[in-house]
Amino acid sequence: MIVLFTDFGLEGPYTGQVKAVLYGAAPGIPIVELFANAPAGQPKPGAYLLAAYGIWFPPGTVLLAVIDPGVGSNRGALILEAEGRWYVGPDNGLFELVTRRAASTRTWDILWRPEELSASFHGRDLFAPVAAQVARGELPSHMPREAEIGRHSDWPDDLPEIIYIDRYGNAMTGLRAALLPAGGRLTVCGRVLKRARTFSDVSPGDAFWYENSNGLAEIAVNGGRAAEALDLVIGSPVAIDC
Amino acid sequence: MIVLFTDFGLEGPYTGQVKAVLYGAAPGIPIVELFANAPAGQPKPGAYLLAAYGIWFPPGTVLLAVIDPGVGSNRGALILEAEGRWYVGPDNGLFELVTRRAASTRTWDILWRPEELSASFHGRDLFAPVAAQVARGELPSHMPREAEIGRHSDWPDDLPEIIYIDRYGNAMTGLRAALLPAGGRLTVCGRVLKRARTFSDVSPGDAFWYENSNGLAEIAVNGGRAAEALDLVIGSPVAIDC
Amino acid sequence: MIVLFTDFGLEGPYTGQVKAVLYGAAPGIPIVELFANAPAGQPKPGAYLLAAYGIWFPPGTVLLAVIDPGVGSNRGALILEAEGRWYVGPDNGLFELVTRRAASTRTWDILWRPEELSASFHGRDLFAPVAAQVARGELPSHMPREAEIGRHSDWPDDLPEIIYIDRYGNAMTGLRAALLPAGGRLTVCGRVLKRARTFSDVSPGDAFWYENSNGLAEIAVNGGRAAEALDLVIGSPVAIDC
Repeated sequence: MIVLFTDFGLEGPYTGQVKAVLYGAAPGIPIVELFANAPAGQPKPGAYLLAAYGIWFPPGTVLLAVIDPGVGSNRGALILEAEGRWYVGPDNGLFELVTRRAASTRTWDILWRPEELSASFHGRDLFAPVAAQVARGELPSHMPREAEIGRHSDWPDDLPEIIYIDRYGNAMTGLRAALLPAGGRLTVCGRVLKRARTFSDVSPGDAFWYENSNGLAEIAVNGGRAAEALDLVIGSPVAIDC
Repeated sequence: MIVLFTDFGLEGPYTGQVKAVLYGAAPGIPIVELFANAPAGQPKPGAYLLAAYGIWFPPGTVLLAVIDPGVGSNRGALILEAEGRWYVGPDNGLFELVTRRAASTRTWDILWRPEELSASFHGRDLFAPVAAQVARGELPSHMPREAEIGRHSDWPDDLPEIIYIDRYGNAMTGLRAALLPAGGRLTVCGRVLKRARTFSDVSPGDAFWYENSNGLAEIAVNGGRAAEALDLVIGSPVAIDC
Repeated sequence: MIVLFTDFGLEGPYTGQVKAVLYGAAPGIPIVELFANAPAGQPKPGAYLLAAYGIWFPPGTVLLAVIDPGVGSNRGALILEAEGRWYVGPDNGLFELVTRRAASTRTWDILWRPEELSASFHGRDLFAPVAAQVARGELPSHMPREAEIGRHSDWPDDLPEIIYIDRYGNAMTGLRAALLPAGGRLTVCGRVLKRARTFSDVSPGDAFWYENSNGLAEIAVNGGRAAEALDLVIGSPVAIDC
């Protein structure tokens, strides 16, 4: 299975062209659009989102992960193998947390370049053909990188910020709920929120936080839109109140 | 064919994870996203929309239908067979009109539970595996329910309200056009609207109603957006003016 | 491969029903949604967008292209073969630029009508079955049109207007960049814009134009949204400043 994790959107031409490349170069392999609205142009929150959601897929999955504000510059391009899953995308920090949390990884620089490489759409021209190749079981013939350079070692293991707002107005944090104290509270924009198991455990209109279905601490309002009610955007800080 | 009828959206992670489960558990069966923006958290208008659109698909189709504000509570989970089509989803009224309008139905409570069941995403963890099983031709081994309990018997056969606003700003009602008087008018928000066959039969800018391509009475403006022009939202009442 | 180029959106019922028809009538053929947000109800800008993006696909591709404000009226329906690619859709100018730019074309009027033809959704009822038929390799048995009538001969070869705003706020013009002077500037809404190769070649916040990944001149702001910053909408005029 090839899984798309991008900020390309679905209605415009970008995801469609990527899928056309994949169908052509890896026929018969199912394609799943996981995120098409990952934080636009922001690899840092994207890295925490990818780490939380990528691990849900079975080993052997190929994740084509592209948030790529530096497209057309000299930023590198990577294939990452982490605990049996494959990630293909730009070398801009997007794979930092996947790498850091995995027991074992291998990383290759993508050296191949297509005959025609546009300046603005490497998702289609570079990463999709490479993802298709990996999905067909063809690995790079050159050696993996000798050692990882911790370019983003200043990024924390969990990010105390809002990293994604979903269509219901729920706000995901970059914090893994399992690492938070059981009765812990979260403070966002001056509001102290208690933990609940799910929506129906609090009164309508009440704000709370809960462990979402992929393990992240997520802020919600029962029957409402937390992002608007609490004025949350990607990057809003979250404090852990023990 | 497996058809998705949800309020999950397409750009975020929900539909993608559901599709990943389906591709894994029912390989080779096409998946169609019918509605990803069904009325969010509102099973009642959703029930009229599902009844109008589900019947368009050929017998044998499996409809995974999830509008599920009570996820994580003790609401039940259902498999419904209605005139050869299969519906899988929560027991919250969403299947009320499909059941009521079908000549024959069978309903099973879903007793199976997955090893890992999140509190907030039964679409992925419970309903998708069951829908895949049904699509593979495996039926529940336990007996169907003995008798239907008319929990929503107070809901009318046709709902005189707006139940959906489409991307063009057209507003679908919960009224089947074939049951309305041929020359009948509809009144919404104080505006009396005549019936027309289609857009090009009225002058640009004119509001009217017509039988949409799935049999519902739908309010539109030629070359405009009816929802904004007439101030319509899901739940706006519609009066039949004979 | 069947490629969808429409203004139907993805979240509502229209694209899903089209795909259900295609899966049924052309099983096993991949479907790619290229544009679901082509200029709504506007075949003229759509024609320039289709010409730029259709040619990216390999010969043999079937493009189901529907922007159809005249649905239900007596406008015609076409199959167009242009340099090995197939286009199916309404006869309203949408294929004008594909036809004009191709070395050789053949055009057939679609004479077939389905048993049930809705007044408002020919994409599903008429064009999808015909596209599936073409994708299966079945061509019309009747003769192509003898001669093309230049109904839209007043449309220019390149359209100096904004024809599409993408999800990043970038604004595509109907101008092919390869035909513009190398150092040429574009003027939109009183702003004179220089050409750059890509985003990372200008300073953050700077507006510029560049050749996009399908050859159109596109207006962008590095790290910003050009449409909002420059107040651009579909139809905004663009002047070439040599």
